[in-house]
This record gives sequence, structure tokens and C-alpha cells, in this order.
Amino acid sequence: MTLAIQSHTTNEVIHTDTVVSYLQKLIQFKSVTPQQAGAIDWLAKQLTDLGFNCEQFTFNNVTNLIAKVSFGDGPLYAFSGHIDVVPASGGAWRAEPFSGDIIDGAIYGRGAADMKGGVAAMLCASRTLLANVAAKKGTFYWLITSDEEGEAEYGSLLIAERLAQQGIQLYGCIVGEPTSHLHVGDTIKNGRRGALSARLVINGKAGHVAYPENTINAAHLSAEVIKRLTGITWQRDEPSSYTSLQVTGINIANVVDNMVPARCEMTFNIRYSHGYKSSDIKNEIQFALGDLAQYLNIEWERPCESFYTSHQCDDNCLLTHVEQAVFKVTGSYPLLSTSGGTSDGRFFANSHTQVIECGVRNNTIHQVNEHVPIADLLIIEQIYTQLLSNLFNKNARC
Amino acid sequence: MTLAIQSHTTNEVIHTDTVVSYLQKLIQFKSVTPQQAGAIDWLAKQLTDLGFNCEQFTFNNVTNLIAKVSFGDGPLYAFSGHIDVVPASGGAWRAEPFSGDIIDGAIYGRGAADMKGGVAAMLCASRTLLANVAAKKGTFYWLITSDEEGEAEYGSLLIAERLAQQGIQLYGCIVGEPTSHLHVGDTIKNGRRGALSARLVINGKAGHVAYPENTINAAHLSAEVIKRLTGITWQRDEPSSYTSLQVTGINIANVVDNMVPARCEMTFNIRYSHGYKSSDIKNEIQFALGDLAQYLNIEWERPCESFYTSHQCDDNCLLTHVEQAVFKVTGSYPLLSTSGGTSDGRFFANSHTQVIECGVRNNTIHQVNEHVPIADLLIIEQIYTQLLSNLFNKNARC
Repeated sequence: MTLAIQSHTTNEVIHTDTVVSYLQKLIQFKSVTPQQAGAIDWLAKQLTDLGFNCEQFTFNNVTNLIAKVSFGDGPLYAFSGHIDVVPASGGAWRAEPFSGDIIDGAIYGRGAADMKGGVAAMLCASRTLLANVAAKKGTFYWLITSDEEGEAEYGSLLIAERLAQQGIQLYGCIVGEPTSHLHVGDTIKNGRRGALSARLVINGKAGHVAYPENTINAAHLSAEVIKRLTGITWQRDEPSSYTSLQVTGINIANVVDNMVPARCEMTFNIRYSHGYKSSDIKNEIQFALGDLAQYLNIEWERPCESFYTSHQCDDNCLLTHVEQAVFKVTGSYPLLSTSGGTSDGRFFANSHTQVIECGVRNNTIHQVNEHVPIADLLIIEQIYTQLLSNLFNKNARC
Repeated sequence: MTLAIQSHTTNEVIHTDTVVSYLQKLIQFKSVTPQQAGAIDWLAKQLTDLGFNCEQFTFNNVTNLIAKVSFGDGPLYAFSGHIDVVPASGGAWRAEPFSGDIIDGAIYGRGAADMKGGVAAMLCASRTLLANVAAKKGTFYWLITSDEEGEAEYGSLLIAERLAQQGIQLYGCIVGEPTSHLHVGDTIKNGRRGALSARLVINGKAGHVAYPENTINAAHLSAEVIKRLTGITWQRDEPSSYTSLQVTGINIANVVDNMVPARCEMTFNIRYSHGYKSSDIKNEIQFALGDLAQYLNIEWERPCESFYTSHQCDDNCLLTHVEQAVFKVTGSYPLLSTSGGTSDGRFFANSHTQVIECGVRNNTIHQVNEHVPIADLLIIEQIYTQLLSNLFNKNARC
């Protein structure tokens, strides 16, 4: 592949059908969550042209795509990703956020790194696989949604449910999220911590500050609640995957200075190690709150289960495949991490399915001037190409 | 004094120039803080007719009255009070709140108990003193404001300053606030706790909940702040006059569940024993907060100093005078208390001036259907009459 990259502000497509042109094309779809804005239609067309069978379904404005190509017997692997992006509001961009303009050797635009860049590279790698690897095995899925950045209620969750309904059991899933830190391939995620939010109401008893003996101060209770929440020892943590509870908001709607407040609303969020399920987290918190429960009402929100993929003791260890592909392209093995927020990987991970996230650098995601250097794109394309070859080449060995 | 009291809903003045007619007249002035709405003008007219010299001054919409009558040598005593009332909004009243209607033997209206009833009784008692006690000594002041229920910035504070500027040193001051509990005269206040409010800002460091190591959670700090504030041991408290700190509000303006909050606003209020000055309270709190100070900014608001009047070892003990007057009228000695909110007594109390509050029952003050039974009014009038006789009669002995 050759690229004649111009140095400043151009949105001309330089060569057609390169990772650059694919990414520019994808950025130009204004696919702010949950709108696909044509991006999934276009992607389905590309995959169909490569030989995939595509099934596209829309529910509550979310569009999902399941594409499949089978090479015969062998394990089932999938690329997972999203074409939706967060809004481009706030701040002045160097380039129009839905242009895909190239400036100083990087492609600018909302989603350039998170994760239309990954999708473009996955597309090029898939094309290479289909064109170049003669003796293939297994089945290859693409699983794409337009709702990863939002509530993710009708995105990859529904895709995973549909696969399960059809009895399809993936052996491994590679999520093209931006996972790298300083250099492409320096970090991959072999799991994610779980996340859980809660909305807690503390009910005390109002009264005049001069007669506190007749009151139950909800503000004072809030301090005890926070002390207990933040004092929990999370026994199942590991150094690389720890649990953290953060109170994110407190509100007492009291405007006078002579009233003891009766009601306090509090929100908190837990990011938890893969040693726990969300039900464990709830139990630990209920236990810690103990006798305060009489004053409290808790509503749990937005549970995101943790997942963790370790090395397997067989030839089809996805983690090893990814590590080898990264090493072959970059000359270094990646750091394994479970840090950061949540991803759609959690919907596909289970006792049968290994999930690894591997993608470009995440230093500009969700920011003004989100961009990805073309050099980085070319590296991730090579890593994906190498990985697909490892996974589907009949003669490949881990 | 004879009263032909009708039993139901009438606002007819039954007899002129009685405590009932005075109170009805006062209630009919819609003197919501700081408006005097004619009430002080009317009162000054009555006092002038009794022989007082009246000085009336208005500043920032607050009207104050200093009335004085001198009987020759002897101690200076004052009646202190306010004619302003809190609004009558909220709820359905049995009588129009500015009518002074009599229902079931009680006068209804905003301010009936707090404290136009006291002012009416003080007026009758003063008239009796001037008319009946032949051999009098000392000087008698009336100190009335239209801003006790509000911020009290330009009310009794300015009156006290004006007296000080003129070199006038009161020996004692009787505040006609409603102090009684179950029966008129069962409780008097020989002091009030101090009050102080604070607005505290906690400055942490924002960040993503997934990376708490890079943040300083202002919500978590708030719990530590509350624990320290409420954990202070107030060494100078007494069983009858204790110190209490109540957090009255907390606000963190954070609407997302993945951000560690950087800023928390908190308000709290302290009601403190007369063993302390407000400066002591501030020092205790600063000491308790200790190393947290680096995250905090405190603004102190609405300081109300405490005061306390104990028994004096001489014939002019105001507390004893009041106790004797109550005993003579009711047959029982009053309970001494320093409980409840603040009052204007604090502006007059100092090392030279004894301050005692004595008035009707406070069970309906600031409420819908505020009222005072006529029987109660007659008792408090008798107590004031007896007290003035004790204070100004040349032949009276404590």
C-alpha cells in the first residue's frame, strides 16, 4: 500500500480503498449515538462485497450489524466495534469534526480514534484475509453497533443475545477500541473492570437547628454513609484490577440555615475488579451500610459486568494470538491492562468466549481535535492483518 | 379591668384601651418585616400620651423607636420588643391573619403571640405604672424595632448603638418575647445561646471515576469534614445550655456518574452555650478541621452572640424581680431557660445590663392560626405591671 500524504488541510481522498480513505469515509457519516447516519449501511456494503453475509437490525433507533463469512470447520472469532461517536460540541477544532481532514499526517475528526479508525483498519485487514490467505478455517463474524457511547441498552447486548438465540458460541472476540498509550500496540486490554452506579436517598427527620434532639440530620447521616462506603476492604482485588467506589454527587435541598435537613440524595459509582459480579458488589455495600439501612433507599443503575481473559493452555489462546501479532508488527509485547472505563467487550465475554481489546492510542478520544496519525492506522491495520492470519490460516500455530 | 368577651368570630373592639383592644389594633397593622406599616407610629403616639419622650428613626426601611420617661434618680430599665411579624402565607387560617378576630376566647392573627401580644401587655402595664405608682425612681425606656424577624441588621443593634453613643447604660432590660411553655409564666429566658452560620467550600480535584488516584474527591472530603465538625467536644457547655453544630446543606453540582466531583458546598449552623463567644467557636472549628484547611474556604455568616443573666448579689437583681413578679401573679416560680433560637436580647446584654425575656406561650408562633388566649394576655399584663412596680417603686425591695 502506498500513500501520497499531503501535509496540510485536505479532505481529498488520496487513494481509494485504503485505511485512510475508509476512515475518512466513516468520519463523514455524522453517526452521533444512536444514529448510524449511513455508516453501518456503507460498512455492510463493503463487507458484502468481500463475501460476508450481512444481517442488519434496528431497534429503538439503534442499528446493529452481524456479518459472517465461513471458511469451514474451526473456531468462531469475531471483530466487535461501534461506529457511533460522542458529540463534537465544545471548543474550536483545527478541522471540521466530520471532515476527516488530514493535518500534519493525522486524520482529524470525531471518532477518528474511538473507534472509526479501528473499524477502517479491521476492514482493510479483513479484505487482506479474504484475498490472500488461501487455506482458511473457522468462521469470521463482524459485530457492529451504533450504541456503544450511549446507554448501550440496544446495541452489542442485543447482538450477543441474537447470537445466543441462534446457538452461536464465539471462541474469541477482538474489540477494536483504542487501547494504546504512547505507541500503537503498547497496551491491550484483556478485561475490563465492572461498573455500577447507585442513587441513594437518606431519609432523616427535619426540625429546627436549636432542637437537634428532635431531629435526625440527613447530612450527618450522609457522612457516616460515605465513611462506610469508602471504608470497604475489597478482598478480591488484585494489583492490576482494583475496586474503587466514588461518591459522585450529594444534594440537600435546604435553603435556610435554621433547619436540620430531612433528606439527602447521593449518587455513587463503583468500578470493580473482575473478582466480583455486580451482585457481589451490592451485597458488600448492603453489608457495610448495615444498621443505616433503616434510613436509606438505594436504586442501582447502569450495571456493567466485569470480564477477564487470561492465557489459555491450548493452541487457540486468543490472548497469545494478539500478543504474537503485536510483537510481530511492533517488536514488543503489549502491556496487559484492565483499566479505564467500560466497553462492549463485556457483552461477549463469558466462560466460552475470550475477549481482547486492541486498538490505536486513546490520548485524544472524546476531546476536541480527536485524531489519529496515519502511521498509527497503518500499524494497527498490520496488527489486525497478522492476527486474522493467525486465527484463520489453517497452517498457523499459536 | 373588665372584659365582656364574646365567644365566636368577632373583630369588634369590646372595650377600648384594654390589652385586647391594643393587641387587635397592633395586629391590624400589616407590619411584615421590615415594614412598620403604622404600628410604631401608633405606639409612639400612645407612649407620648403617657408622658414618654419618643425618638423614632428609620434606616434601610427599618423603623426603630426609643421612648423614655424619667422619674428621677435610680436605675435605668427598659422594655424591649418588636412589632414586625413573619409573613402569614401558607395554609388556611380560621381568621384573617391581620384581623385580630376573637375565636373561642383567643385573639387570632399573625404576631398575636410573637410579639404584639407582649407589646400590648407592656403598654397596659406602663399605663398602670404611670397612673398608679406615686413614688417612683429611675428611668424607663421603651426600645422597639421593626426588624427582629429578619436579618436584624438595622434594628435593636442600632438602638443599642445609639444608647451607647449617648452614654446611656441600662441596668436591666425586659424583652417581651413569648417564652412560656404550657402556662404563662412557667418559663422565662435568662439568656440565649449564640448562633453562627457558615458557608464552606471544599475544593478537591475532578477526574474520571475509573482513575481515582488522579483525583481528590470533594464528596469524600465532605464526610471527613462533617465527622470532624460533629465530633467536637464542647468543653464549656452546661446541661442547661449546650452547643450543637448542625450541617444544614450539602451541594455537589455533578450530573454525570463517571466524574469525581471537585467542589462541594456545605452550610452549617452552630447554636452555642454562653460559655463561648463566636470567636471561640470559630477557633474550635478551625482547630478541628486542622489539616483539611488546605481544601477549604469558610465564610462565616449571621453571628448572634450568646448572653446570660445570672442572679445578682444586690437588691437590683432583675432576674429575681422577674421571678418574684411571676410568682406573685401565678403562684409558681418560672423555669429558667436559655433554649430556642436567638432574640434581640443579645444586643442589649453586656456586663452592665441584665436581660430577661418573659412573655406569653410560644406554641403557635410563626404558624398558621397564631393566637393568644385573652386569659393569657391578662396574666402577662399583670406580671409586667407587678414587675414595673417592683422596678420603679421607690419603696419596693427585691
